[in-house]
Amino acid sequence: MNFNEELNRRTEEIERLLEGYLPQESGFQKTVLEAMNYSVRAGGKRLRPLLIAESFRLFGGEGKAAEPFMAAMEMIHTYSLVHDDLPAMDNDEYRRGRKTTHVVYGEAMGILAGDGLLNYAFETALRAFDIDPGNQGIPEALKVLASKAGIYGMIGGQSVDVQSEGQALSREKLDFIYRLKTSALIEASMMIGAILAGAGEEQVKKIEQAASDVGLAFQIQDDILDVTSTVEVLGKPIHSDEKNHKTTYVTLEGLDKASADVERISMRALDTLAGIGRRNEFLEELIRYLVSRKK
Amino acid sequence: MNFNEELNRRTEEIERLLEGYLPQESGFQKTVLEAMNYSVRAGGKRLRPLLIAESFRLFGGEGKAAEPFMAAMEMIHTYSLVHDDLPAMDNDEYRRGRKTTHVVYGEAMGILAGDGLLNYAFETALRAFDIDPGNQGIPEALKVLASKAGIYGMIGGQSVDVQSEGQALSREKLDFIYRLKTSALIEASMMIGAILAGAGEEQVKKIEQAASDVGLAFQIQDDILDVTSTVEVLGKPIHSDEKNHKTTYVTLEGLDKASADVERISMRALDTLAGIGRRNEFLEELIRYLVSRKK
Repeated sequence: MNFNEELNRRTEEIERLLEGYLPQESGFQKTVLEAMNYSVRAGGKRLRPLLIAESFRLFGGEGKAAEPFMAAMEMIHTYSLVHDDLPAMDNDEYRRGRKTTHVVYGEAMGILAGDGLLNYAFETALRAFDIDPGNQGIPEALKVLASKAGIYGMIGGQSVDVQSEGQALSREKLDFIYRLKTSALIEASMMIGAILAGAGEEQVKKIEQAASDVGLAFQIQDDILDVTSTVEVLGKPIHSDEKNHKTTYVTLEGLDKASADVERISMRALDTLAGIGRRNEFLEELIRYLVSRKK
Repeated sequence: MNFNEELNRRTEEIERLLEGYLPQESGFQKTVLEAMNYSVRAGGKRLRPLLIAESFRLFGGEGKAAEPFMAAMEMIHTYSLVHDDLPAMDNDEYRRGRKTTHVVYGEAMGILAGDGLLNYAFETALRAFDIDPGNQGIPEALKVLASKAGIYGMIGGQSVDVQSEGQALSREKLDFIYRLKTSALIEASMMIGAILAGAGEEQVKKIEQAASDVGLAFQIQDDILDVTSTVEVLGKPIHSDEKNHKTTYVTLEGLDKASADVERISMRALDTLAGIGRRNEFLEELIRYLVSRKK
């Protein structure tokens, strides 16, 4: 297997799938639909849908119930970026080299496009009931989606992050933010793939644990790249954490320990994954890639 | 039956139920949870949960599956108000005589509290699977909740409303906004009550039709009160539509026709309801009350 080729192929598959789930840009409410689609089409790694698909594959999932969840997960990730970028939040004008949604469509439409994506994510995931009515895991997968995206998941982490702006953070609080803001959706993705494939409770717990480590290592790698990369490679401003006086894993623990910890935590994730007793080599490669990525 | 006493009693029941579904204000993310609860506790008529309960009762519903949906519906209604009030939207500092959420908690927290409520609404409604696992209507009720709250429902209407600010509206566009922005959640409420009570497709269509008229009459009555009421009675500024150069049913059709249409449309709603062949006298009274209300 050539990992990079395979990654490109599977990511393109997800792009096509996503496109098929986006709303048609028509009707009086055309603008909000355009703003939503603009946000989703801005690209990105499509990591979370990829993880749903690979976790579903790991557990030998059959049928198409995972597909609407893949689209829904990317919508939730995207809405969180759209709202994060708003003037009252991070006030970012560019993301992935393109103007952010509120810059193109105005602030009110930025708020509504985010709301629209969050709501449409649930509408989309609920289509699983029609796509694969026999899949008994759908209610549980919906619960995981909702809880990991919400106030005890991503929104909870985001709100503590916002409130901590300009303040020095304890390691405990930083861990909380990373676990909720970054890991929660990664956990949800891998859990949903497993649940829809029919994995048992114990297996779902293991995949949650592995995913939690993947998310943590991924986030620490993000902190490292903010210090060590260049604008050209990263496609976004570097040293932004320093400029914003932001506590990160790197500012708390130093670059050397941060790098060693990415290695250690991602190894632990792979160990946990190995303990599941099934294998998905691409997923293992993907995890190695994510934590050693340069952008 | 003394309608007013009964209305108070049932509304208080809903207040208690709602309170039980609100998140505990603890943890690092305490502030966003406080902002969410502050918004929900600001009060209001609790009309939508009331309509779920009464529609459920109309169709002889049994069990408790409607309860999480009642709480979820009020959370969705509340989040829409919190986001509507934001500076980039209507920029309202007061609602129901209290400071709006973003005024008390800041704009970022206003956005996040709204996101939190929308997401938690789905988390809450999904609890129905645990509360009444035997209720076969839950997936359909979830679909109605999501679709009527979303880009082809409330958010769609809201986005056209926002975009039309300061513009003269055609009757067609105004109808679209009213149907989506106001009627959609009222339709969803009555449909969800019916679906969870086991009503058939035909009955659900009838209740949707009745609810659509209730929503329309309710909204026109709102326009009328903006012109005819006082700040003291209404608890919010009057003549706000005129000040904002807003096209309303009253500016398009005049006060007399608007009043006659409220009467006509609400009668049509009651007729449709009568065609269902079951009766809920309180629900009928409630509809009469809503469209003749003075605040």
